[in-house]
Amino acid sequence: MEGGTIRGWETADYLFSQDALCPDTKRIYSSRDYLFNKVTVFHSCLLSACEKRRSFQSVCVGHYVLPPYSVQEALKNHQLDNNNGVVRCCSTSRGVCFGDRPSSTGRLRQFVPHTVECPVSLLHKSDMDLDNLSVVLHSQKDLRLEQRPIPEPGPNDVLLQMHSVGICGSDVHYWQNGRIGDFVLKKPMVLGHEASGTVLKVGSAVKHLQMGDRVAIEPGVPREMDEFFKNGRYNLSPTIFFCATPPDDGNLSRYYTHNANFCYKLPDNLTFEEGALIEPLSVGIHACRRAGVTLGSIVLICGAGPIGLVSLLVAKAMGASKVAITDLSLERLSMAKELGADFTVTVAKEDSPQSLAQTVGDLLGAPPTMTIECTGVESSVQTAIYATQSGGVVVLVGLGKEMVTVPLVNAAAREVDIRGVFRYCNTWPMAIAMLASGKVNVKPLVTHRFPLEQALQAFETTKQGIGIKVMLKCDKNDQHA
Amino acid sequence: MEGGTIRGWETADYLFSQDALCPDTKRIYSSRDYLFNKVTVFHSCLLSACEKRRSFQSVCVGHYVLPPYSVQEALKNHQLDNNNGVVRCCSTSRGVCFGDRPSSTGRLRQFVPHTVECPVSLLHKSDMDLDNLSVVLHSQKDLRLEQRPIPEPGPNDVLLQMHSVGICGSDVHYWQNGRIGDFVLKKPMVLGHEASGTVLKVGSAVKHLQMGDRVAIEPGVPREMDEFFKNGRYNLSPTIFFCATPPDDGNLSRYYTHNANFCYKLPDNLTFEEGALIEPLSVGIHACRRAGVTLGSIVLICGAGPIGLVSLLVAKAMGASKVAITDLSLERLSMAKELGADFTVTVAKEDSPQSLAQTVGDLLGAPPTMTIECTGVESSVQTAIYATQSGGVVVLVGLGKEMVTVPLVNAAAREVDIRGVFRYCNTWPMAIAMLASGKVNVKPLVTHRFPLEQALQAFETTKQGIGIKVMLKCDKNDQHA
Amino acid sequence: MEGGTIRGWETADYLFSQDALCPDTKRIYSSRDYLFNKVTVFHSCLLSACEKRRSFQSVCVGHYVLPPYSVQEALKNHQLDNNNGVVRCCSTSRGVCFGDRPSSTGRLRQFVPHTVECPVSLLHKSDMDLDNLSVVLHSQKDLRLEQRPIPEPGPNDVLLQMHSVGICGSDVHYWQNGRIGDFVLKKPMVLGHEASGTVLKVGSAVKHLQMGDRVAIEPGVPREMDEFFKNGRYNLSPTIFFCATPPDDGNLSRYYTHNANFCYKLPDNLTFEEGALIEPLSVGIHACRRAGVTLGSIVLICGAGPIGLVSLLVAKAMGASKVAITDLSLERLSMAKELGADFTVTVAKEDSPQSLAQTVGDLLGAPPTMTIECTGVESSVQTAIYATQSGGVVVLVGLGKEMVTVPLVNAAAREVDIRGVFRYCNTWPMAIAMLASGKVNVKPLVTHRFPLEQALQAFETTKQGIGIKVMLKCDKNDQHA
Amino acid sequence: MEGGTIRGWETADYLFSQDALCPDTKRIYSSRDYLFNKVTVFHSCLLSACEKRRSFQSVCVGHYVLPPYSVQEALKNHQLDNNNGVVRCCSTSRGVCFGDRPSSTGRLRQFVPHTVECPVSLLHKSDMDLDNLSVVLHSQKDLRLEQRPIPEPGPNDVLLQMHSVGICGSDVHYWQNGRIGDFVLKKPMVLGHEASGTVLKVGSAVKHLQMGDRVAIEPGVPREMDEFFKNGRYNLSPTIFFCATPPDDGNLSRYYTHNANFCYKLPDNLTFEEGALIEPLSVGIHACRRAGVTLGSIVLICGAGPIGLVSLLVAKAMGASKVAITDLSLERLSMAKELGADFTVTVAKEDSPQSLAQTVGDLLGAPPTMTIECTGVESSVQTAIYATQSGGVVVLVGLGKEMVTVPLVNAAAREVDIRGVFRYCNTWPMAIAMLASGKVNVKPLVTHRFPLEQALQAFETTKQGIGIKVMLKCDKNDQHA
Repeated sequence: MEGGTIRGWETADYLFSQDALCPDTKRIYSSRDYLFNKVTVFHSCLLSACEKRRSFQSVCVGHYVLPPYSVQEALKNHQLDNNNGVVRCCSTSRGVCFGDRPSSTGRLRQFVPHTVECPVSLLHKSDMDLDNLSVVLHSQKDLRLEQRPIPEPGPNDVLLQMHSVGICGSDVHYWQNGRIGDFVLKKPMVLGHEASGTVLKVGSAVKHLQMGDRVAIEPGVPREMDEFFKNGRYNLSPTIFFCATPPDDGNLSRYYTHNANFCYKLPDNLTFEEGALIEPLSVGIHACRRAGVTLGSIVLICGAGPIGLVSLLVAKAMGASKVAITDLSLERLSMAKELGADFTVTVAKEDSPQSLAQTVGDLLGAPPTMTIECTGVESSVQTAIYATQSGGVVVLVGLGKEMVTVPLVNAAAREVDIRGVFRYCNTWPMAIAMLASGKVNVKPLVTHRFPLEQALQAFETTKQGIGIKVMLKCDKNDQHA
Repeated sequence: MEGGTIRGWETADYLFSQDALCPDTKRIYSSRDYLFNKVTVFHSCLLSACEKRRSFQSVCVGHYVLPPYSVQEALKNHQLDNNNGVVRCCSTSRGVCFGDRPSSTGRLRQFVPHTVECPVSLLHKSDMDLDNLSVVLHSQKDLRLEQRPIPEPGPNDVLLQMHSVGICGSDVHYWQNGRIGDFVLKKPMVLGHEASGTVLKVGSAVKHLQMGDRVAIEPGVPREMDEFFKNGRYNLSPTIFFCATPPDDGNLSRYYTHNANFCYKLPDNLTFEEGALIEPLSVGIHACRRAGVTLGSIVLICGAGPIGLVSLLVAKAMGASKVAITDLSLERLSMAKELGADFTVTVAKEDSPQSLAQTVGDLLGAPPTMTIECTGVESSVQTAIYATQSGGVVVLVGLGKEMVTVPLVNAAAREVDIRGVFRYCNTWPMAIAMLASGKVNVKPLVTHRFPLEQALQAFETTKQGIGIKVMLKCDKNDQHA
Repeated sequence: MEGGTIRGWETADYLFSQDALCPDTKRIYSSRDYLFNKVTVFHSCLLSACEKRRSFQSVCVGHYVLPPYSVQEALKNHQLDNNNGVVRCCSTSRGVCFGDRPSSTGRLRQFVPHTVECPVSLLHKSDMDLDNLSVVLHSQKDLRLEQRPIPEPGPNDVLLQMHSVGICGSDVHYWQNGRIGDFVLKKPMVLGHEASGTVLKVGSAVKHLQMGDRVAIEPGVPREMDEFFKNGRYNLSPTIFFCATPPDDGNLSRYYTHNANFCYKLPDNLTFEEGALIEPLSVGIHACRRAGVTLGSIVLICGAGPIGLVSLLVAKAMGASKVAITDLSLERLSMAKELGADFTVTVAKEDSPQSLAQTVGDLLGAPPTMTIECTGVESSVQTAIYATQSGGVVVLVGLGKEMVTVPLVNAAAREVDIRGVFRYCNTWPMAIAMLASGKVNVKPLVTHRFPLEQALQAFETTKQGIGIKVMLKCDKNDQHA
Repeated sequence: MEGGTIRGWETADYLFSQDALCPDTKRIYSSRDYLFNKVTVFHSCLLSACEKRRSFQSVCVGHYVLPPYSVQEALKNHQLDNNNGVVRCCSTSRGVCFGDRPSSTGRLRQFVPHTVECPVSLLHKSDMDLDNLSVVLHSQKDLRLEQRPIPEPGPNDVLLQMHSVGICGSDVHYWQNGRIGDFVLKKPMVLGHEASGTVLKVGSAVKHLQMGDRVAIEPGVPREMDEFFKNGRYNLSPTIFFCATPPDDGNLSRYYTHNANFCYKLPDNLTFEEGALIEPLSVGIHACRRAGVTLGSIVLICGAGPIGLVSLLVAKAMGASKVAITDLSLERLSMAKELGADFTVTVAKEDSPQSLAQTVGDLLGAPPTMTIECTGVESSVQTAIYATQSGGVVVLVGLGKEMVTVPLVNAAAREVDIRGVFRYCNTWPMAIAMLASGKVNVKPLVTHRFPLEQALQAFETTKQGIGIKVMLKCDKNDQHA
């Protein structure tokens, strides 16, 4: 919806839509200003948030930034004022006031959108069957939107109409660097692995799924029945297929075929976006499980990015009594606070690991029984070791440089275990159970939505570290959450 | 407070007090009617609850029944009407209306209190130091209130002024049967082991406590440093001291001395009653820990008594996605529902274990990954086995008859483990952490409070299965929660 | 070799061969006496062993009984006396004297072989490709040797030339009862699941095996990638394929096709029989693993049949300091002693479980930390519970009647866990590692060998409880171990 | 015994004694040559061993070096030649020939003993009660033999007459450096913590021991009943008492008082030296337990010093199928081979960790499932990480410099856990069980024995890295093993 003086959207004081397909949004998308001026207007409070981050140029046309989750929730319970479309919401408990009007709308005019070349020539194909628009990384920094053939499902596969795909830091890393460690891009590869969609075709041997089922996709599919697989740790299988890890294609497409055994039916009360978010959530689950988080655990999480935040959610759901979280960014920490962190610690680059460890222990009232390190930064790994209680666990989720200098004697002599996390295994069913029961709420993590056609802008947004999770909407006919 | 027409308590429409020491309550306690007629009047809605249970005679003088926890909470936010003390509370969300007045007060007149002989002759001793009133079981069915010497703390002990002590089913069992299994009462024994109090004296070797500290008491104290103790399973030590297990005295007294290493300081935000409730909560923690409850677990709990209910609270806090709970009693199940049970199953004695197991699985959408059996009834143990998912766990908390007939092949061939629970170990610190963080709320479990002097009535109440947890208030000067 | 008066084997006092294809054996097989009289002559000491068991009639023609393993080993280091073929071996330490001669050979003449109808009409087919002689159970007590088509391997399969297949108690149980629990024979089924063979053809997708590889066969192959499989407990998958469990065919055939992922290459230093014995050994591994046997464990094993014996071998290899084993049969216990049992306990049916438990504890110097129950008999399960140390584990391997009466309170109140075992998972690689390293020696378990053509006699032998493990030799051209 | 031309020991070609109190040894000790010339003569083959190591000067007077364990064992089964006391033993299988005579005895004369000042003035005190000769470290490099008062046992203590105490690398480290990490010697401290002795006095509260009991001593005794202790990880208790860790005295004395709960009765079939060796063995047990060694494990051990060797023994006893061990020293590796290592890898300082890891994997046929790092050297820790299989464990036993540079991403991304070991807990009972059952044989580790009076020479020997384990014999009247 748009607001303010509603003589035309271009002079609106603010604009916000939860729904990319609502009439207002559609009107905007088809308006002359949108098409030619490439300007989207936002709710003033969002703009000011952007301003604060000096990130105007990243907020591109055609998509929309979501307001904070608490505001989204508040809006659900309020009526629009029919006269002028102004949202009247005075959620004092959150301190967010929606009825405000910027003292000056001039600000909007200063908005100079970042122009990204969009080499898409087939966007408006009428034949749906031929439209398999995909986000393809051709080589380092060469990301393209292009058509790909729609694969036929084998006997154990399902063909999916993709709905929501989140952008992961690793997608951006491949885009910017053409490699992650030993995984090197050698031929064009479709990106995307945080995904959900709808079953369109079912392979002959598939029993547990049928056409129309809404599913979340586990991107890793073991290729061989090796000892890792047989022992229930298939994530360690060296020959595993994994979406968007070279040379395996990901699923940022209109249509995608995947092994049905790694597609999990979503209950009716879960959205596609929740389905897509199971992937990052799984990293948090695996990390907390490897950490042994249990009733009364005291947890330190280093880094409040998406993985730190899902780890926070999971740690709380597993019974942690206190969670402290660190980051360089105050904004990320404020999101962490909103998601349930008991303590937040702003880190400065010059802080010594020992003194940070001391600070954390003082804050928590005791050293953390486990630390989940999500930054990969050497000094943060050191902090994690120093901070953790004797007999505790440090889980390494963030991966940094190859060789790291750490106080290994300190860890060993206090029997602080150091455990790595490689992706995850056996997390989808429990993640679905948690989300469906309402024990864990990942919805607040989504801060941006883009239609698939705007994928390059979406990647640009993620690259700039704006917001938490950017969602790409792959279904032209349903861009809801 | 009492309400209605306040010309005298005997015609009051209702009466309720959260606070045994509030002026109203004091006035009642010192009123002629109370002293001579031995009748206490209750809020009409409570009376009707009693009526429903046909348990009038169990509601004795001098103590008070607590309204449902949701009502207690609602009351906190409302003012009393100063004119007549009527509580005006219209908590529509809970559907409990407090402003009501019974159409007829005649009901009250039908109330014939159960008379219990109270052989206490020293209740009004002026010298506090000499008053160590204690609840002593002399032999089967011979429970007495009598004075006991106040023990001096040894170097590792603390002397405690007791505050709140809950009555456990085992206390009642000893009273009624003089034994539990191999533990036979051979000489008079003080009852009580769910307790909290304040440190009065500190033994010479004690470092972590000081005078004035409020503590929760872990009733089991290993006597020998045997292999069980060294391995962290001290609850299994055959020579362990345990409050109110013959021949060891419990702590239902004004004063009590305990090993300081098994007294845990309460944070300021925990009440004494929460401290006392850590004991039953510990059984739930130990049961859920032995069951391996974790993120996404589906849990069946058999029996909605105090232990079933704490197991429910703990299972939820450890990440269970769904909890179903069974009982014969609708009222207990409604309490379970209020405490967070996702599903409740009313059991009839004639239900076959297999069909019950099927019902539970259908309700939960899948067989439970673990079942916590809290009844000890043979058919319920059978249900637990049949119901549990292959590879799952049945935890036996309730203990019934010595020899039980069970479908062991069914359990074994599906690798459903059967694990017992003997009390607990290493639970107090995590319980305190959970309570202090607000993750677990045990307050709703307290449904009755009695001053220590009314201990026999309190035991009578527990024996009759009324309410959930009955608290005895041992401190004459502080009978708050 | 044959012995006694060596004018011809037919008058030999005794005869023994380690090798079914050695010239002597061949000569016997083709001799007139063998063909027409159906008499096989045995070493006198074996005969006397048979006599003792009154099991003459079970020792049929055409196969041979192996002497005790210690004698087999002793024989390897001794030369035959060329003059008369008499084995001169005086292994006094074992008390087995091989140079003896029966005082009278008359005994042999009294030998009346048990006649078993052998409905095999195609035994001597010249065309090997057509000869897929198989042991097929048509219905209860209707076991037949008949030709079966040779299956073509699918892309993930291998076609195997079978070499050695052990007979399991469950094979005999299906034969005698037509069912085990819910598994009911409804159509003819090939028996056999303790097997090894040689790869003849390799499916198109198979990478880790090639023609000529000698492999051990894991008989259970999950059909669905369900949560049990993904979590590494595929034995619990309800849809698993399992050799010789209705309706799935086993591998007592000349040729057999199996999923290559469940065929494990045998190192050169393992025999085919060791390969076949990995199956029962796996039950022992899984049982000991579920029991948590580790360094210094004190283990009680109830039952000294094949599974009790492999559990003994595994428990020792996992670090058990003391193992006691019980049985009704002195002979089985003496085998257990030979295999390393520290204590053997002869059980009488009238022994009370409590007193047996006491006896075991006294013998071991302490209660066992874990008990592996291999009989399934109710009183033995009771003994297992009473005997096991507080905090210990009872593993149920033997499965008896559906409902069992057990002292569950005793187990629960001492936190003695009761864990079942359903087959095994993830055991072949570690079993191969243990056998190849010489840590575990299963060879002594083989007491009988029969050519496949004599399968019915072999089943008869097993049914009568003679010896420990009967091996069927499926390869006409190689009947070595 | 001495050998060669037996006209007098001083001209003997060789001399060896298993028994410090055998008449021959006594004769030597009381001989003029011994007393004045301070020369001890050794068996020629030992001398040549010494020669090889250029360690003549370390082999001091008054004690004796033990021949390899296989020789000790071989000797037990052979008679001395009565004529001249020559040992005639031709154990060809081991390649050690005892009947040899050095071609020239001149070598002996070249032996120039290393002179160590021995500031003991009270060695020959007649009054036993006053003789509590102790090895006291006064400050860095200032090690003294001096009298100490004999402590009275408290109620939970026992007074012990010490028998055998091994010298540990940490004892030498304190002697040479005055500190280990944060533990700094600030006042004189008795050394020694690998010890066994006999109970002389029993504290009033001690139940499980009585006078005359032979016991092994666990040197760590928790002082506080903190959460570490209650959870069974008392080794991590920050206030634990530990023998010979400043400021706590060790037990290298004639008499010593210890908490009875940490004294474990030795079975009759264990020697005092085996009792003393339980301490280093415990490190191996704890390391293997933390590593999760089980049936079929493939283990890499870095470093073949005493801890590497006990880890080898334990890994084998826990079911490891293959153990490879690395060291710089060929001699240590040959000892490892003798103790059961399947593969030995000689490391050169310039070897790259990756190539070493590759070598180890090739040798074992697969990457080790766990690596036990006993050197503390940075490059060895790196090797351990690179070598270990995905999903495996690296246990850090050896502790090196504070900050270590390691390939943490390699470990984390393959979920190779890094676990430290701090001493041990709960190992004595299982160690005694293993030794008593004969599953583990630690006797070969003892290569040198010295009477307590020769402690300084013993420390000198250990410092020089000669042999494996040096034992000090504290009981003047019994210097047997």
